[in-house]
Amino acid sequence: MYKEDIKVMDCTVRDGGLMNNWQFSDDFVRSVYDANVEAGIDYMEIGYLSSEKAFDPKVVGPWKFCKDKDLRRIVGNNDTPMKLSAMADIGRIDLNDIPMKSDSVLDMIRVACYVHQVDKAIALAHHCMDKGYEVCINLMAVSKVNEVELDEALRDIAKSRVKTFYAVDSFGSMYCESIQHLVRKYIEALPGKEIGIHAHNNMQLAVSNTITALMEGCTMLDATLLGLGRGAGNCPSEILIAFLKNPKYRMLPLLQAIQDHIHPLQKQIDWGYHIPYLVTGALNEHPRRGMDWMESDQKNDFVAFMRKMHDNEALE
Amino acid sequence: MYKEDIKVMDCTVRDGGLMNNWQFSDDFVRSVYDANVEAGIDYMEIGYLSSEKAFDPKVVGPWKFCKDKDLRRIVGNNDTPMKLSAMADIGRIDLNDIPMKSDSVLDMIRVACYVHQVDKAIALAHHCMDKGYEVCINLMAVSKVNEVELDEALRDIAKSRVKTFYAVDSFGSMYCESIQHLVRKYIEALPGKEIGIHAHNNMQLAVSNTITALMEGCTMLDATLLGLGRGAGNCPSEILIAFLKNPKYRMLPLLQAIQDHIHPLQKQIDWGYHIPYLVTGALNEHPRRGMDWMESDQKNDFVAFMRKMHDNEALE
Repeated sequence: MYKEDIKVMDCTVRDGGLMNNWQFSDDFVRSVYDANVEAGIDYMEIGYLSSEKAFDPKVVGPWKFCKDKDLRRIVGNNDTPMKLSAMADIGRIDLNDIPMKSDSVLDMIRVACYVHQVDKAIALAHHCMDKGYEVCINLMAVSKVNEVELDEALRDIAKSRVKTFYAVDSFGSMYCESIQHLVRKYIEALPGKEIGIHAHNNMQLAVSNTITALMEGCTMLDATLLGLGRGAGNCPSEILIAFLKNPKYRMLPLLQAIQDHIHPLQKQIDWGYHIPYLVTGALNEHPRRGMDWMESDQKNDFVAFMRKMHDNEALE
Repeated sequence: MYKEDIKVMDCTVRDGGLMNNWQFSDDFVRSVYDANVEAGIDYMEIGYLSSEKAFDPKVVGPWKFCKDKDLRRIVGNNDTPMKLSAMADIGRIDLNDIPMKSDSVLDMIRVACYVHQVDKAIALAHHCMDKGYEVCINLMAVSKVNEVELDEALRDIAKSRVKTFYAVDSFGSMYCESIQHLVRKYIEALPGKEIGIHAHNNMQLAVSNTITALMEGCTMLDATLLGLGRGAGNCPSEILIAFLKNPKYRMLPLLQAIQDHIHPLQKQIDWGYHIPYLVTGALNEHPRRGMDWMESDQKNDFVAFMRKMHDNEALE
């Protein structure tokens, strides 16, 4: 009944940190880690691997850098079946900042890039592979990329040694049919590679887009507890696990962490379905302006936000 | 590009009233009505048609009865292109309570029934047709009905004069594949009849299930402003309208009503995605116990609720 080769990647701390500059307490991160281990989650992405030259450690928390000492304070040597991942953004990391795998508790580095950065992303991914890591490449903002440029990027990925490639709906602007089209294209263009899915919930489609991608052949599925993540957030782990019905996963540890740590955070952070995020998603725009609006005094003036965003008549 | 025969049915007051005993102010109901008219919505279901013998008017508001004088206080003679609907539950209405269409501002009566009540529902629907109304039948809780019983009910519906029949995911327990299966079955069993979809959001699938049903041939689509409705709520009108891209609909009036009336209501009523509703949906159970839990002191003890609901190991 269930698919055996599915792997679930928890991104709660990494994607959720985009909402609070990764200012999570150690207790919070440890609880998410423990819950994921107990629940049988396959990978946990605990943050970004970045250069301290790119970000001010006084502004962003330790999970923007994922230094080995900070990781080990939470996970020890991670003597569990769960693998640990960190994301690296092109241009925000020096190669020297990446330790050898033998010196690190990380198992995987996911390289995030825009389409014009694909060659740099492949170079960085190969560098990480040579240092001993699993890698994958997440191509962001693909809903804005024209088909010719995308095909060219896919040809480069196909020729690379990178084994895993992600379909990413960065703006939460994709419907079932566009997810199907994208995943089919990736699978056809990248024979022998594994495809993942990372969805956002601007139009309340993150769960269904993740399921659609799974049906089309994606085997790496990103999710976060209670959907915690940038803007409208992600596919909630607890819904995905309930759907998968795979005996290797357990629901209760996830609910316990949600109850103790994630749900209380809703009082401080406005992630999830809010009208400004619907507007940016439906208009296929970056959630940034929705996030700025949600932090302004006008956050509940939805009509003003829509008027402001509305350069065309698409939604009127 | 867009489908011309689509009709959107707003159920904000009718389904939302299940959360507050239809205790909406006239100002609230009038604003929802005005917004729907301005937005080009095709039908608005303004409440239930019920007998005062079945419910205490001191407990439930006027939209549980939809008396003509209450309706006209809000809509006048409804001199608009939008049609007005009321829902009637089998066993909670006397035929004498239903006025002739010529004496009523209502256009449609939707009969809601369980599978064992289908013959009674057909009789009531025929009675309403004979009085001059459009009618349809909404078969509730179909996720619990066995296929043989369902086929028998569909044969009765097929033979009836009723022109519209609804696929209803009462418990928010259905995935894309089950919606596809159900809608295909309805279309095949009911040639010449129109099929509708009414979805709930327990597993964050209300939007996608509504889109799936539309793709499969449903032409009547239920939605509510900001998803206001029982438990996890419904398919949000604003997301559906953004998806449809049909020039007959307008988004801004809906956002204005959400901003002025629906969003502020979130401080008083806990509809929408909450873990107890995920649990009832994933277990294919009535949301009633989730709603009771959400009103208790333990509402945020998700683990205790899951343990309480958990008669089997399906989710653990």
